[in-house]
Amino acid sequence: MSDRPAILLLSGGLDSATVGAIARDEGYALHALSFRYGQRHMIELEAAVRIARHLGIADHRIVEIDLGAFGGSALTDDSIAVPKGRDADQMAGDIPTTYVPARNTIFLSYALALGEVIGARDIFIGVNAVDFSGYPDCRPDYVGAFEAMANLATRAGREEPGAIRIRTPLIAMTKAEIIRAGNALGLDYGLTVSCYDPDEKGRACGECDACILRREGFAAAGLLDPTRYREAAS
Amino acid sequence: MSDRPAILLLSGGLDSATVGAIARDEGYALHALSFRYGQRHMIELEAAVRIARHLGIADHRIVEIDLGAFGGSALTDDSIAVPKGRDADQMAGDIPTTYVPARNTIFLSYALALGEVIGARDIFIGVNAVDFSGYPDCRPDYVGAFEAMANLATRAGREEPGAIRIRTPLIAMTKAEIIRAGNALGLDYGLTVSCYDPDEKGRACGECDACILRREGFAAAGLLDPTRYREAAS
Repeated sequence: MSDRPAILLLSGGLDSATVGAIARDEGYALHALSFRYGQRHMIELEAAVRIARHLGIADHRIVEIDLGAFGGSALTDDSIAVPKGRDADQMAGDIPTTYVPARNTIFLSYALALGEVIGARDIFIGVNAVDFSGYPDCRPDYVGAFEAMANLATRAGREEPGAIRIRTPLIAMTKAEIIRAGNALGLDYGLTVSCYDPDEKGRACGECDACILRREGFAAAGLLDPTRYREAAS
Repeated sequence: MSDRPAILLLSGGLDSATVGAIARDEGYALHALSFRYGQRHMIELEAAVRIARHLGIADHRIVEIDLGAFGGSALTDDSIAVPKGRDADQMAGDIPTTYVPARNTIFLSYALALGEVIGARDIFIGVNAVDFSGYPDCRPDYVGAFEAMANLATRAGREEPGAIRIRTPLIAMTKAEIIRAGNALGLDYGLTVSCYDPDEKGRACGECDACILRREGFAAAGLLDPTRYREAAS
């Protein structure tokens, strides 16, 4: 166990909550960073606040960023529809319309800045290359390239090359493996929100890519799904 | 001459204005991006607006980012003093207190997002490795690492590796060479602001690192310095 500080990028979803549970179990003193970026809904930020509390994280910063002004994604632009009812084959291949331009790059850049200020060298992020291969910025070669850049960009990386580490414990795990890992650490997945299109009470649609992957993940893990669905999709 | 769109990171200073003049001369259709990030003064943003107009740039976006909440730099944190009266030897070596953590990485990440949305593949930034070797994120190896990451992060880079280019025409130029280049293109340097600590009328202190480098640059270029200095420093 160590008490080294680390940054946790926390979205309110299942993946980043699991990363938080893993990093906490490794003994890091976590500083959580979440973003308000023109999402369609604030429900995931409320979930991030609940999860930070559940993980015992005292320092949780929410940074406002104006990605929405740029448009270009179904998650930030109301004129683009969230795709529904697709199977895993349809999700693979193409870059989906829910891809937000350069989102992980912007999130990791803020984490890099905060890490430099508070003296954290490890940045934990819940990217996963298995289920969502359509996103360019969720792949191992992207993460490695960001880490190389980060070590050249910063005081810590200049002074000790390789000091900055982008930690992606989920990158090669299936959704079922992720859920089993979090469950084994006592994570309450009822606090997390995955749906791209929840209703005003935070209930999931059950039909978007994120809902489908989540439901299949719990089924494959052999665990009960604590997600609250709308009636039509339950 | 081309009419390809390009992003220009525009600060209101001498360097980014010169980059804009160079990119315009190469025939790019420029989209300027500036940031409000908890600077001590808004005077440089007013300068950025004037320069965009001078360069004939119709699309100038100013994005609010909350770097100031992180602290850690004399340029964003009022509790850290701007160093004054240093010579070039004192400026070299150490990373100065005016370094803003991960600033160029955050700025370039936003440019990457905007570029992806509007279809621009070239991002122009006025980093310079000669005069300000103390900043880790102004060096060629950093820029190359960012570019490599950017091509893995984005749709355009995935579809055509190497498509995204981080353009740094000033990186190996002295301040005098930069000023001569802009002057030859008709750039009005009276519109630009370099000082880290201008007064409320936008007059330069004449004593901070940026003022000293600027004044020495005009002298070495053999050109009149249009900077308005405060009386004590003139």
